[in-house]
Amino acid sequence: MATPPKNKLFFGSFVHSKTLAELEYLHSTAIAVDATGKIVAVEPGHATAAAAAEALLPKLGWAAGDVDTVATKSDSHFFFPGFIDTHLHASQYPNVGIFGNSTLLDWLNTYTFPLEASLADPAKARKVYTRVIRKTLAHGTTTAAYYATVDVSSTNLLADLCLAAGQRALVGRVCMDQLSPAYYRDESPAAALASTLASIAHIESIDPSASLVRPVLTPRFAPSCSAPLLKGLGALAADRPDLPIQTHISENKNEIALVKELFPPSSTGAPDDSYSSVYDAFGLLTERTILAHGVHLSEVEAELIAKRGAKVSHCPCSNSAITSGAARVRWLIEKGVTCGLGTDMSGGYSPSVLEAARHAALVSRHVAMGGDDKAKLTVEEVLYLATRGGADVVGLGGRVGAFEVGMEWDAQLVGLGTVDAEGGAVEEEDGNVDVFGWETWEERIAKWVYNGDDRNTRKVWVKGRLVHERKG
Amino acid sequence: MATPPKNKLFFGSFVHSKTLAELEYLHSTAIAVDATGKIVAVEPGHATAAAAAEALLPKLGWAAGDVDTVATKSDSHFFFPGFIDTHLHASQYPNVGIFGNSTLLDWLNTYTFPLEASLADPAKARKVYTRVIRKTLAHGTTTAAYYATVDVSSTNLLADLCLAAGQRALVGRVCMDQLSPAYYRDESPAAALASTLASIAHIESIDPSASLVRPVLTPRFAPSCSAPLLKGLGALAADRPDLPIQTHISENKNEIALVKELFPPSSTGAPDDSYSSVYDAFGLLTERTILAHGVHLSEVEAELIAKRGAKVSHCPCSNSAITSGAARVRWLIEKGVTCGLGTDMSGGYSPSVLEAARHAALVSRHVAMGGDDKAKLTVEEVLYLATRGGADVVGLGGRVGAFEVGMEWDAQLVGLGTVDAEGGAVEEEDGNVDVFGWETWEERIAKWVYNGDDRNTRKVWVKGRLVHERKG
Repeated sequence: MATPPKNKLFFGSFVHSKTLAELEYLHSTAIAVDATGKIVAVEPGHATAAAAAEALLPKLGWAAGDVDTVATKSDSHFFFPGFIDTHLHASQYPNVGIFGNSTLLDWLNTYTFPLEASLADPAKARKVYTRVIRKTLAHGTTTAAYYATVDVSSTNLLADLCLAAGQRALVGRVCMDQLSPAYYRDESPAAALASTLASIAHIESIDPSASLVRPVLTPRFAPSCSAPLLKGLGALAADRPDLPIQTHISENKNEIALVKELFPPSSTGAPDDSYSSVYDAFGLLTERTILAHGVHLSEVEAELIAKRGAKVSHCPCSNSAITSGAARVRWLIEKGVTCGLGTDMSGGYSPSVLEAARHAALVSRHVAMGGDDKAKLTVEEVLYLATRGGADVVGLGGRVGAFEVGMEWDAQLVGLGTVDAEGGAVEEEDGNVDVFGWETWEERIAKWVYNGDDRNTRKVWVKGRLVHERKG
Repeated sequence: MATPPKNKLFFGSFVHSKTLAELEYLHSTAIAVDATGKIVAVEPGHATAAAAAEALLPKLGWAAGDVDTVATKSDSHFFFPGFIDTHLHASQYPNVGIFGNSTLLDWLNTYTFPLEASLADPAKARKVYTRVIRKTLAHGTTTAAYYATVDVSSTNLLADLCLAAGQRALVGRVCMDQLSPAYYRDESPAAALASTLASIAHIESIDPSASLVRPVLTPRFAPSCSAPLLKGLGALAADRPDLPIQTHISENKNEIALVKELFPPSSTGAPDDSYSSVYDAFGLLTERTILAHGVHLSEVEAELIAKRGAKVSHCPCSNSAITSGAARVRWLIEKGVTCGLGTDMSGGYSPSVLEAARHAALVSRHVAMGGDDKAKLTVEEVLYLATRGGADVVGLGGRVGAFEVGMEWDAQLVGLGTVDAEGGAVEEEDGNVDVFGWETWEERIAKWVYNGDDRNTRKVWVKGRLVHERKG
């Protein structure tokens, strides 16, 4: 699947987020990407790819023979930034769709811990991680913030496989020294920190410049970490201000009650007993912190999170599936909290960030049904969360998530289906988005958001490298 | 696509609803279907298709050469009853996914009426209706309760096309003589009734025994019908006790207020000003009536609906998308109301009943978040609604929706994807359901409900006839 590094010229229609509210449509446009994967020119206004090449290549000093050209076929094809999945558990992938009527804490014990523990078997880990990387790439996920397991070697394997497949990834060894069954936890805070350092060292050894893969400090969530472990991770985070941090927050009401019980302010020195204050007291609420869920945050907590610059990964599929609640994304954004989307497999049932975007729009309507009509998220807004917002959440803002000079080419070629005059013969490969021909571009994008799937993601590039292509 | 009528023997795993709560798994089973499409034998306990044929054919008096055998390939394939879509607007299909942030009444004026009116153009109607039939068949919908448009000829065309494609369908000419723009409505109650009779006559002429296609009385919804029109339709319903009736009820709060304003009890003679009482006063609340939505029904209304034996088509995708509300399905069922699922395209964004089932489970969790934990619908329950429940809703209970002797063979062959030892090579055609091999059958079904799509629906039969087959 890998292609050797070469200059590339992309031509056709490009769609990306300009702001939260607005998509920009660049038609008859050429984007030049150099051999390192960087966007070096964005030029609208060319009638054909050949005309664009003729105008652009001399300016770039590129010989025509040294350039691969990728032009879109028709006006139902366009380039879109790759999706950023800001929260998912690679190790839980085999369980997608399996959760019964459980909620968070029983779901962890019944479905999740046994599966995660079983990935200490390297053959099983390889099978599962290979699959989840291929699957998410096929759905256009160019960057993923992964939780692996407690096991160091299987975590390291996940990083190896991401690098080999060319997927940009944050890879976190899961820290937990309490709450989970004895067969699946860190033996002590010291052991947890040592294992974390070992995994960090491995990941930094395979990609020293963090060109694609980087380690991420990963306290599973407060209830599964002892105070000494959280303290140690906070100290490590202070030592290593380049490392991102990921954890969960305020997903489920019983979980919140458990945090209050486990971490009273008297034990943490926090000013109150909120979940956010616990992380803050341990130095883990930082501008590098990715907080998954944030469903039941209070006003004060949202303000603290915004003040610290921590980010929220909204995981609507998971929140609905395991009955956690309906996160108020508009409210978080208005509080100044940076938000992105997570599939949260396998609390979430789908590997697709597009499904997360669609369901974010739907869940926002359920929030609106409570009386706050402006809670509704538009198609444009959920796509922003899936790309630019997500890039900001995982610390890659300005580097990926849009098509601007200086950013890296993490992108997907999207193709929608077209309906012929008889309404009949079509390519099955086209999937479920039917363009009849009279739709505006805005309507085509809405159709993609509501009925698109991996069949519409024809090709995927990360850092200029082709990492997925549909056979069809 | 049509195959000549022939006796058929299906062999392998069959899964269908026994009750609301329970799926039945029939493995190593043979089902014999005669040339008229009727199930004549269901026999578990045969090791192979050949063994089943040897045991079964002599009992049936069938010569081996006269029988087509269809055996499932592996334990990730199974037969499942075809889906019943109890509510959709064929004429709105081109608008799926296009609704912006609108709600019902502005959505009708902005998106819906202009499109429906445009289908008076027969070429456009043919294109759209051909497409919607192919698309829904591809998603396993063997029976659809369609709304067409106000236009008689385009409604008749929809019935012609369903019959030709072999899809079981209720086809309704939309009655409306008020509320909609002047360019798109019946000219008078008398004109509406005459057009309705004309469409009924056509549909009965092409399928006199209603073997597949039947007409359905279709007052769009109370606000778009004058009292004389509703009265006329009630009289027609009384004259023709064989005809089903379909309409909308209690979808949106502004709509409910409009009904109260338009139909005060003083004008209808109803005992109260509820939406249900309006239909009841006009003789339209019967055991043949399919009521779409029922989101905001009161206790008294649910009891009246149960008493009259009218049915509810739950349309979760639509209810979320256009912010109508979250219908309380468990509550309706406990009130004694028979429920099924509708895609409600294009208020709903998807042609897939499986998506409606998935979203019914998710929406039920949002109802549960309000505090009523037992509101949650299980995988088994949403599949019941999609098949057996739907059959009861459209008046085909006991005839389709399950695999029992005497019922007709409306079925789909479902194939799930399997992951090889390396986690890699798979058929793209397999879609997004990944079976790793260790899953129970119940877990496989859950995976299908949460990640399945039309790629998993390999073949579809209606009344024994193969009406869809994936190329892949």
